[in-house]
Amino acid sequence: MAHITLPPELAGIRGPMAFRPETAAPINALVDVLLRGPNTLSPAEREMIAAYVSSQNDCHYCQTIHGAVAAHHLGGNEALVASVKCDFEHAAVSEKMKSLLAIAGKTALAGKNVTAGDVARARQHGATDLEIHDTVLIAAVFCMCNRYVDGLATWAPDDPDFYRGRAALVADHGYAVSAVTRS
Amino acid sequence: MAHITLPPELAGIRGPMAFRPETAAPINALVDVLLRGPNTLSPAEREMIAAYVSSQNDCHYCQTIHGAVAAHHLGGNEALVASVKCDFEHAAVSEKMKSLLAIAGKTALAGKNVTAGDVARARQHGATDLEIHDTVLIAAVFCMCNRYVDGLATWAPDDPDFYRGRAALVADHGYAVSAVTRS
Repeated sequence: MAHITLPPELAGIRGPMAFRPETAAPINALVDVLLRGPNTLSPAEREMIAAYVSSQNDCHYCQTIHGAVAAHHLGGNEALVASVKCDFEHAAVSEKMKSLLAIAGKTALAGKNVTAGDVARARQHGATDLEIHDTVLIAAVFCMCNRYVDGLATWAPDDPDFYRGRAALVADHGYAVSAVTRS
Repeated sequence: MAHITLPPELAGIRGPMAFRPETAAPINALVDVLLRGPNTLSPAEREMIAAYVSSQNDCHYCQTIHGAVAAHHLGGNEALVASVKCDFEHAAVSEKMKSLLAIAGKTALAGKNVTAGDVARARQHGATDLEIHDTVLIAAVFCMCNRYVDGLATWAPDDPDFYRGRAALVADHGYAVSAVTRS
């Protein structure tokens, strides 16, 4: 049971977002810019960073929904997303993505854990300032979302089909619009 | 030196915010609603929660600027802010504030650390659902900001007068406006 009274039909972050629309609006705007805005990183890559950080933070709702959105963008390749969460250094992603996932994982532990060496590795594989910036900020944003979701003890469905259905909606319409869509 | 090229005259979070205004806008909107919007918690109380979480996360820029803003709202009582950061259970704040600071500190470590007992303590001292929600979200937001600031290795001035000056500006005009104001 959640620590505060939330709409019982809304899972994960959607409960507190419905409870407090004044803070939900800028959070959804931020996530839409970072994960869906114009970027040299694909939406699938950015969603994988979000899912990986959320898995490191042990947030069931966030890692599952963002993993499902990433898989949706990848034509249903759930195995790739699972391998990124489990062991990204050996996953079938680019060397640049591996270096960015390493930065994201360190950011999730503590900002100061990111070293000049981590950033040099990313640059060596072609990462730009904007890609490094967005990787750090995506990791930071999901450290926020994960704590918001679990700090209020929200509930999350177990059924993978729930997340597949929401993922299709989010991929088509974005986070701000989907937040107010029932299901 | 920061990990990416940022405007050298802007300290802390203001460097990456100037670098990426598309993400700065919703972050500043979120912080303005949470720390300065209508609320039964005073701006000083909310700034103290932000400063405390940032001190637990060892983020020099965020703990110093939000501590300075809190002190500004408290008529310059920097000693109270210092005592909250150092040992809030023995600081001269209300029992409700102590219970909310305990929730904020646990949220900063990991969302699941917040227990029903922590929330019951807060309710016993009169905390509402909205106050508990906002405490968790303020803590979560500063876990984001702290990682954003330190994950990019931004610089922060040592001089306390720098923060006192910015604090007066922020207290009068808010975060969104002050973000684009020089100094």
